[in-house]
This record gives sequence, C-alpha cells and structure tokens, in this order.
Amino acid sequence: MGIHKYFQSLSDLEGIYRCPGVFKYQEHSVASHSFKVSTIAQFLATVEDQHGKEVDWKTLYERAMNHDYSELFTGDIKTPVKYALPKLRELFRQVEGSMTREFLNKEFPPELREVYQERFREGKDGSLEGKILSVADKIDLLYEAYGEIQKGNPEPLFFQIYKEALESIIQFRDMDSVMYFINVILKEMIEEETASQSKIKDITEHLLSEDAAK
Amino acid sequence: MGIHKYFQSLSDLEGIYRCPGVFKYQEHSVASHSFKVSTIAQFLATVEDQHGKEVDWKTLYERAMNHDYSELFTGDIKTPVKYALPKLRELFRQVEGSMTREFLNKEFPPELREVYQERFREGKDGSLEGKILSVADKIDLLYEAYGEIQKGNPEPLFFQIYKEALESIIQFRDMDSVMYFINVILKEMIEEETASQSKIKDITEHLLSEDAAK
Amino acid sequence: MGIHKYFQSLSDLEGIYRCPGVFKYQEHSVASHSFKVSTIAQFLATVEDQHGKEVDWKTLYERAMNHDYSELFTGDIKTPVKYALPKLRELFRQVEGSMTREFLNKEFPPELREVYQERFREGKDGSLEGKILSVADKIDLLYEAYGEIQKGNPEPLFFQIYKEALESIIQFRDMDSVMYFINVILKEMIEEETASQSKIKDITEHLLSEDAAK
Amino acid sequence: MGIHKYFQSLSDLEGIYRCPGVFKYQEHSVASHSFKVSTIAQFLATVEDQHGKEVDWKTLYERAMNHDYSELFTGDIKTPVKYALPKLRELFRQVEGSMTREFLNKEFPPELREVYQERFREGKDGSLEGKILSVADKIDLLYEAYGEIQKGNPEPLFFQIYKEALESIIQFRDMDSVMYFINVILKEMIEEETASQSKIKDITEHLLSEDAAK
Amino acid sequence: MGIHKYFQSLSDLEGIYRCPGVFKYQEHSVASHSFKVSTIAQFLATVEDQHGKEVDWKTLYERAMNHDYSELFTGDIKTPVKYALPKLRELFRQVEGSMTREFLNKEFPPELREVYQERFREGKDGSLEGKILSVADKIDLLYEAYGEIQKGNPEPLFFQIYKEALESIIQFRDMDSVMYFINVILKEMIEEETASQSKIKDITEHLLSEDAAK
Amino acid sequence: MGIHKYFQSLSDLEGIYRCPGVFKYQEHSVASHSFKVSTIAQFLATVEDQHGKEVDWKTLYERAMNHDYSELFTGDIKTPVKYALPKLRELFRQVEGSMTREFLNKEFPPELREVYQERFREGKDGSLEGKILSVADKIDLLYEAYGEIQKGNPEPLFFQIYKEALESIIQFRDMDSVMYFINVILKEMIEEETASQSKIKDITEHLLSEDAAK
Repeated sequence: MGIHKYFQSLSDLEGIYRCPGVFKYQEHSVASHSFKVSTIAQFLATVEDQHGKEVDWKTLYERAMNHDYSELFTGDIKTPVKYALPKLRELFRQVEGSMTREFLNKEFPPELREVYQERFREGKDGSLEGKILSVADKIDLLYEAYGEIQKGNPEPLFFQIYKEALESIIQFRDMDSVMYFINVILKEMIEEETASQSKIKDITEHLLSEDAAK
Repeated sequence: MGIHKYFQSLSDLEGIYRCPGVFKYQEHSVASHSFKVSTIAQFLATVEDQHGKEVDWKTLYERAMNHDYSELFTGDIKTPVKYALPKLRELFRQVEGSMTREFLNKEFPPELREVYQERFREGKDGSLEGKILSVADKIDLLYEAYGEIQKGNPEPLFFQIYKEALESIIQFRDMDSVMYFINVILKEMIEEETASQSKIKDITEHLLSEDAAK
Repeated sequence: MGIHKYFQSLSDLEGIYRCPGVFKYQEHSVASHSFKVSTIAQFLATVEDQHGKEVDWKTLYERAMNHDYSELFTGDIKTPVKYALPKLRELFRQVEGSMTREFLNKEFPPELREVYQERFREGKDGSLEGKILSVADKIDLLYEAYGEIQKGNPEPLFFQIYKEALESIIQFRDMDSVMYFINVILKEMIEEETASQSKIKDITEHLLSEDAAK
Repeated sequence: MGIHKYFQSLSDLEGIYRCPGVFKYQEHSVASHSFKVSTIAQFLATVEDQHGKEVDWKTLYERAMNHDYSELFTGDIKTPVKYALPKLRELFRQVEGSMTREFLNKEFPPELREVYQERFREGKDGSLEGKILSVADKIDLLYEAYGEIQKGNPEPLFFQIYKEALESIIQFRDMDSVMYFINVILKEMIEEETASQSKIKDITEHLLSEDAAK
Repeated sequence: MGIHKYFQSLSDLEGIYRCPGVFKYQEHSVASHSFKVSTIAQFLATVEDQHGKEVDWKTLYERAMNHDYSELFTGDIKTPVKYALPKLRELFRQVEGSMTREFLNKEFPPELREVYQERFREGKDGSLEGKILSVADKIDLLYEAYGEIQKGNPEPLFFQIYKEALESIIQFRDMDSVMYFINVILKEMIEEETASQSKIKDITEHLLSEDAAK
Repeated sequence: MGIHKYFQSLSDLEGIYRCPGVFKYQEHSVASHSFKVSTIAQFLATVEDQHGKEVDWKTLYERAMNHDYSELFTGDIKTPVKYALPKLRELFRQVEGSMTREFLNKEFPPELREVYQERFREGKDGSLEGKILSVADKIDLLYEAYGEIQKGNPEPLFFQIYKEALESIIQFRDMDSVMYFINVILKEMIEEETASQSKIKDITEHLLSEDAAK
C-alpha cells in the first residue's frame, strides 16, 4: 500500500511494550522510547558540540529516531537469545536485513529506497553519532529501571538492568557528554534518592500546630 | 530461588501479550491462552474418546498447559523470523533447549528435573495428544482473530490469521474432533455472523408502538 | 448456539477480575487464575506421586481447569455474603446447579452433557485430587496477596488474605506436597523478602569507584 | 477506623466495574455510574418540577448518590442469581442489611448511624423520588448498552439490556419526565443512529475538488 | 442534538483523568471525583446540620455534582497557568462563561436554560454551601494525594498537593465540619499511616510455630 | 534538580494523552505523537530534498521533537479556548514563555539555556522547516482521526478533526511534499477504506469447498 502503510506502522510501535513478561508500574512503548532516546541524544550531542566536537546532526537524529523500527518485523527477541550463539546472531541479522529490504521494495517508491535502507540500518558504530546513540539508548534504559526501583518494584531484574546499563555507559567515559552524565546528572539522581521524604504525619502535625499558634 | 521462582513466573505469563504491535480491541495474555487451549483440548479429546479413541489424558493436559511456558525465556519471536531460514530455526531450538535446562538446573530439585524437562518440551508431535494440541492451539488463535473481525477491526492481518489458522485445522480433518469442529462449531460461528443484528431503531419503535396499542 | 458459545465464553473469563473493589498493582483474571491453579496442582500432584501416592491425573486437571467456570453464571459474590447464613449458601448452591444444567441443556449436545455436568461440579472433596485442588487454589490466592504486599500495597486486606490462605493450607499438613510447600517453597519466599535489596546509591558508587581505580 | 475508612471506601467504588465478564469497548465503574444516575435524576426531577410536581430534592439526591454503595459489601451478584428464587432474594436482602448495620456500628459515630442507615437503604419505592431513581438507574444502563451497540459491539447481551431497560422505563410512562425522555431524548438518540455518517472518501474528494476549483 | 447530547457527555467525564502528566498508581476521572466530592459534601453538611446550621440541601448537591462539568468545554488547564496573571484568569472565566451559554442554547430547551446556567456556574462562594463545596473538593484532592503517598509514589508533587490541600482546608477551621475533619478523620488517617504493618515473615513464622505447638 | 529532572520529565509526556474526554479505541500520548511527527517530518523533508529544496535538517528535527514539550507546563488547553479571544491567546503565550524560562533557569546550566530556549520555542513559522512541522503535525492528527473512524468510532468529532486537518494540509499545497501526500498517500488511504473486506463466511466456505474438492 505504500507510504500510507509506513505512516500507519508508526502507530504499531505505540503498541509494542518494552521488556514484556515482567511486572512494571509504568509501561514504555517502543514509540515513546524512540522519542526519549532522540531527546537524550540531542542533549548529549549539545554537550559534545560545546566541547568543540563536530556533530553530524542529521545523521544523529536519523539514527536515534529509527533505531528500533525493525522490531516491527522481528518482534521482541530477548537479548540472551540473540547473543546465545554467534552463528545465531549472524543469521538473525541476515534475516532482519532481508525483511527490511523486502518492506522497502514493497512499500517505498524506488527513489527513496536507498536513503531509507540506510536509515533502518543498525546505527551504533564507532562514529561520534553512533557512540551517542549507544549511550542515549542505555540512559533511557537506565531511567526505565530507575523509575521502577524508585516506585518500589521488588523484581531484582531492574537492579540488574540498572547496573548493566550503567556499566555500558561507563565504557564511553572518554566522551565529554558521558562525563557530564556521570558527574552531574547521575549525582542529581542519587541525591534525589537519598533525600528522605518528609512523612505525612510530620507535614500534618506541623501545619496544625502552626495553625494553633496563630 | 527454587520452586518459589517457578510459581512466581506463572504471573509473568499474565504480562506477556500475544501478537504485540497490532491494534486489538481485546488483548490476550499467554496465561489466558494456555487456559483456553487446555480447555479446548479437553473438549476435542472428549469427542475423540466418544469415538473410541484412546486418549492419554495426563499427557494431553500437561502438553496443553505447558506448551508456551518457554516464551518466558525467549520472548515473542515473530513467526516469519523463526521460519525464515531452516538453520536459524534449528539454532533457536537449540538455544531454547539449553535455556530450559539451565532454568531447571537452577530452580528445580534434582528429582523433578527430568519430569519437567519432558513437560517443557514442544509437544506437537504425531501422537493423538500432539495432534489435539496442534488443533486446539489453532482454534484459540482462530477465535482471537474472529473476535477482532467481529468487533470491526480493520487490520487485514486478522483475516489472514483466521484463514491460516483454519487451513492448519483442515489439515487434521481425519480426526473426528476436527470434523465436529468444522461441521458443527464453525457452522454455529458463521450463523452468528450472518444473523443480522436488530437495529436500535427497530427495537425502540417496536416497544413504543406495542405500548401505545395498550 | 452450541459449543461455539462455550468456546467464546472462555474469553469472558479473561474479563472477570478477581477481588474487585480493592486497589491492586496487578490484576488477575479468572482465566489466568485457572491456568495458575492447574499448574500449581500439577506440581503438588507430582510431589505426591513421588511419595508413592496414586494420582488420578485426568480428574485432577479437569477439576483444576474448570473449578471457577460457574462464576460466569453467578458473578463474583463476596465470600462473607455466601457464608453469612447456611440457608443462603444452600440456596445459592441450588441456583448455581440449576443454572449450570440450563446452560448444558441449551448449548451442549446430549451425549456430552453428563460428562460436563460432572466437570462443572465443585471439585473440592476429600479425595486426593479434591484436596490438591483446595491447596492449589489457596496457594495461588496466597501468591496474589504476596505480590501486592511485596509491591507495597498498604491495604490491610492483603495481609488478611495472606494469613487466611496460609491457615487453610496448613490444615492439609498431612499431605507430602503441603509439607514441601511449607518447608521449602515458603522458606524461599521469606528469604526473598528479607534479602535486603542493594541500594541504587551503593551500586552506582561501587561501579564508579571501581572504574576510577583502573 | 471511622469516617476515614468511609472516605477511603469511595475510591473502592472506582475499582468495581459494572457488568464484568462481557467484552466492552468502554468500562464504567460504580462510582461513575452513581455520578451519572444522580445527574440524570437531577434532570428528570427538574422536568417534574416544571410540571408542578413537588420534588423532595434532599431525598432525591441522597438516594441517587448512595443507591449502589452496598455493592462494596456484597460484590456484584448477577441479577438472574438474585432473582432466581424469592427466598434467596429475601435472604440476600437480610444479609445486605446486617452487613450495612455492622459497617455503620464499626465506622460511624453513634449520632450519625441512623441518618446513614436510612441513606444506605434501597431507595426505589413508590414515592416520586423513588420512581425517579428507578428511571434514572435504567436510563444510565440504557446509555451504557447504547454506547456499546453504537461502537459495534457484537455481543447480543447489549441489545437485550437496551430492550429490558427501555421496557422498564416505559412502565413509568405516567410521569412527565418519562414522557419527555421517550418523546424527545429517545428520538434524538434514534436520529443520531440513522444519520448516515459521511464517508472519508467523500469528505476527502469533496475537499480536494473544491480546492482544485480555486 | 439536545438533552441526548448532554446525557452522552456525562460519559466523556469518565474519560478525563485528573492531574495528567504525572505518574500515578491509581487514576481518577472527573466523573468519579464529582461523585466523591458530592458524597464528602453530604457528610460535611450532615455534621453542620447536627450543629444547628441550616443547610440548603438542593443547592449543596447541585453545586457538588456539577462543579467540574465545564472542564468538558475548556480541557484541563494547569492551575499555575490559570492563576499566572489576573487578566488571564479574568479572560478565561469570560470564555468559560460564553462556552457554557453556547452549549445551553444549542442543546437545552429554552425553559431549562436558566436553571442549568445557574447549575453550571462556579459554586464556591461565601455561603455555607459554597464553603462546604470548597472543603469537600480539597478533601478529595487530599485523599488522592494521600493514596499515592501511601502506595509509595516517589513524586514530590503529591506531598506538595497534600500540603496545599490541607492548608486550604484549615482556612475553613471556623466550620464545625472542618473541625470534625481535623480532629477526628485526619487523626484516623495518621494513625493508619503509623500503624506499623506486620511483616510477612512474622505472620508466617507465627502461624507455623503455632501449628507446630499443637 | 537539573538535567536529571529534564530527563525524568520526558516520561511525564508518556502520561499525557491527546484529546481527553472523547471516547477513543486507541489512546496516543504526547511522547508517541512527538515521535510520529518527527518521523513524518523526516519523510516530508526527504521529498523536499529530492525536489531540490535545501533542508536545514538540524532545525527540522529539533522543532519536530520538541514542539509539544511545553504542554508539561500548561496542560492540555482545548483549542477553542486558546483561540476564543486574541487577547487570551496572547496572554497564554506570555505565560507559556515565562514558564519555560523559569524551568530553564531552574534546571539547566547557564551555558545551555539559550540553545534550549530556542528549541522550546513554537517552531511553526514560514521557513521550510516551520512549514514541514505544521504539515507533519496535521498529518499525524489526521491519522489519529482516520484510525478511529476506520475502527468504527461513532463520535462525529473525528470526522470534523479529519476534515479540518486535511483543510490545513491543503493550505500548503505549494510544497512538493504536500502534493506527494495528497496525490499518493491519501489515495492509498482511500483505496484501503473502499477495498471491501472479505467476509469470514466467504473465506470459510471457500476453504472448506476447496478442501472438499480434493
């Protein structure tokens, strides 16, 4: 059906929820995740830019926005499965590639196929834009896990995800934006966690005693 | 953590929704699907039994109840991916097998591992119980698609699923229970669809005119 | 409309939620509950079998799978109402029985009515299978309450449900499977609860200091 | 815990959904229903008032707002069960009454028990206020069914509910407000249903051709 | 379309959720909120009545039930926006007023417009009924915030809402019903919060040791 | 709390639903909408680029991604309110502007405030990027309305939204990408709508007769 089909498929990404089969207080769709990763990548790239790095903004945004589109073709395969055997991963990548090509040939006009083929490619390479995408993807994952832990989710998986996401981010500590994340943003997050919340009892009694003193 | 972990994991199956990324009026979890397949299999086996077939009930129920448990380990891999390359399918099966063994070794006491290894195995073989499971799984899928079509879902995928599920069921037309499904149940379904629903206008005017005639 | 109606009604059990009118972090449908009770019963019966008890597996699974089907006819009547007056309970049972018979006469072919009449009967009698069903039903209820308490539900009702479910289970302590539940599974559950969760602050500082030491 | 418990319990009514076990496009809680019935009763009473009837407004609003509060104690018992046997209905009413008294004695200060005992009583008697409540309750039920039919719900139950609700309303045709409902509001509803919706194709082509003519 | 349109619009209030854009464990619709405010106002007025105040019940209930109806026309504008500039607030009130009049002129018969114009007006004036509405609105808001805090919501906004709602309520401390709320109900709430919840471990070990002692 | 607060706020956009108070089969959050508008803008800009227009990609993506961020501060004000009085609209804009500045001053480091001030500005000006954003925003709105109409939503509002969105798009018919949308994509959409869906009865009878012929 053409580009109409492509535009419609964007709504399907609103109906794929990340990390199925684990209780969560708050669900996150692939569409929302793509928005958040793009916005975080925008921030990281701004920091890089302020430190004198040359950012290819067009490439950066395209990679961030499109980086999970192919989940529409393949479904949500759990990471341990994907990485269980190198041969499996290799074959899986082949299948993903051929499904993307098939979709492009069926729905896109010939003159746009090449540019979209490039956009739907895995973008996490060693370029500055590829590295920013890798970090932004992990920061959003870390925030998803943090949100659950903060709300009291007893599932140990979220601690593990938080830990693994942070480990991945630290790998990129040679980047100025990553140092900013670690030295500034992460610190704000931890301060928030330890700020002991005032108790309802205290608020209430304080307000009432103040009132009585009038 | 042992069997406690296994009991807890049953709730995770309540949080995996079938056919993600397609708009549905009604969602179905893997837990609900397992219940429905078991109940449909019970019906089909009862028909077989009445036609003189020997049903191994213990095997039948175990296969139906446990047939999708391994989705907890692998996630929901879309069928076209799984079947894209014979080698890929073969490798997926290996990985699934080794993940199941790992889970059993970690959480189950030694004396129960073998019996559960057998229960978590793919049960759709050529035995009567295997064939009943194959048919029951497709009947529930057909009902899921029918439910969407009946509610007005415009997504063509559900017509395709309905069609493919029915084609699969017809393959087993040598079974008495499948003939019963085709000749009786499917007929009831089609009659329901064509029974033209009375209109609100008609009901209302009928009631009011009746009342006026009093 | 016949068996088509029966197959469709299974989906209605996906839309009846247990324990309405109390805030829950996670909802459980009657369909999911039936699946979980069947799976827990399977486990308990396996333990009994290993201790030399003769399990009638066909009966066991049928009772577990079908034990709440009649809620479709009666709705979810709160337990205190049902048990408030012996006469009420008695009348209620009569009504439930006659509604089931009516459904069978309307939708089932004559040759299947008797076998399904038996299946839709209350199965919690003094037989081994009846006792396993009683225990499995309470174990799932205990897990539902435990899941809420663990997630921080302040509603005292869930403590009460947990307590009453455990008391009911303990009544069956002469069964090997119940002793296994108490001595092994319940212990795992309590250990999980007391295992103090590591704090985000600790994880984060640990990872960062490790990294700095490199 | 007193009135705090009573105030908290109002939120529980937000979590009891009407007509469980039937697929609906839109769920309605008991809290929402109570709001709508009160607002509809307000309208009907305004019409009665304009036709010279004396409305006891305090009684009217109290009955409408509180008419389903006791579902908190009893759960949602399906109507056919409640009415199956006169004796059963009688006993249900006794149990409901004694549960309400128990709640009042436990949570309410003595000086308020009598007035709330009266408020939690079934209010559908032969008084003008009782009759308005009966009609308003049915009008909201009719709108719930109409909403489903209008959205394409294939479940025949909603036609039956619509029909039975309308029949009940017609019983009260000696009331001016009911005549207004039948002669004016119901007519608007039917006109809405038959007004053939314009098609997207038509809108689109019309807009484009208009544009081309410029 | 007339009153039919008005009755249908009540369901739209079931689909407007309060306080959008902040994570909540439990959502509250404007319809449910209206029900709860009316019920709380009923309680407060009963206390006033017992202290010899003359309550105009008709006015009281009308104001409570209809106080948020105009959100249908305006949407949910955040409070800080509304109050940012006095001129903005003034203009906003003008627009709200003219939208309400337009709706009445379009959907209501002439003889009912005036009475509904009055009902859709902001009812929080200095009369006893206006003051009860102001307090009841804040009590429900306080309960919404309390419900989130009690369930472990880490969002500091709910502490702020709780605090501001309580401050507003205290402003009305010259009312007997407000003194009752502060001296009795709020105390029950705080007692509930500090009542240390028993631990699963304790319950379990207690039950088991009791059992062992038999 | 700084950028941590900004990153957390992205999740709040997942909890603001568009067009509240109207029944929808499928909800769309502001986060998802932002993702879809960015992806549609990417497509339109690609067409412009192929027709020789110079696209400033950095500006384009920034405007599309951030265009609704300020709804976090203001809430969802219904369009008719916003535009009711020119003075009101002007004041709303002032308030929005000062709230954004306040947020930037509170949470952003000084060196990033200016660049983000620019990003949070309304981006729909007369530049190519501004026009693409205007069109992409309307295309997503049109698709939201189309999705509801296609699923059978009886609410006339969605026809009105579809119509008004299309009218707005047509205003930009001097753009090559808009001509592509009208001539190609809209045509595909209409063809989809008129393609009469095959009936279950036909599929079923066809499959069965085919089978019988074997």
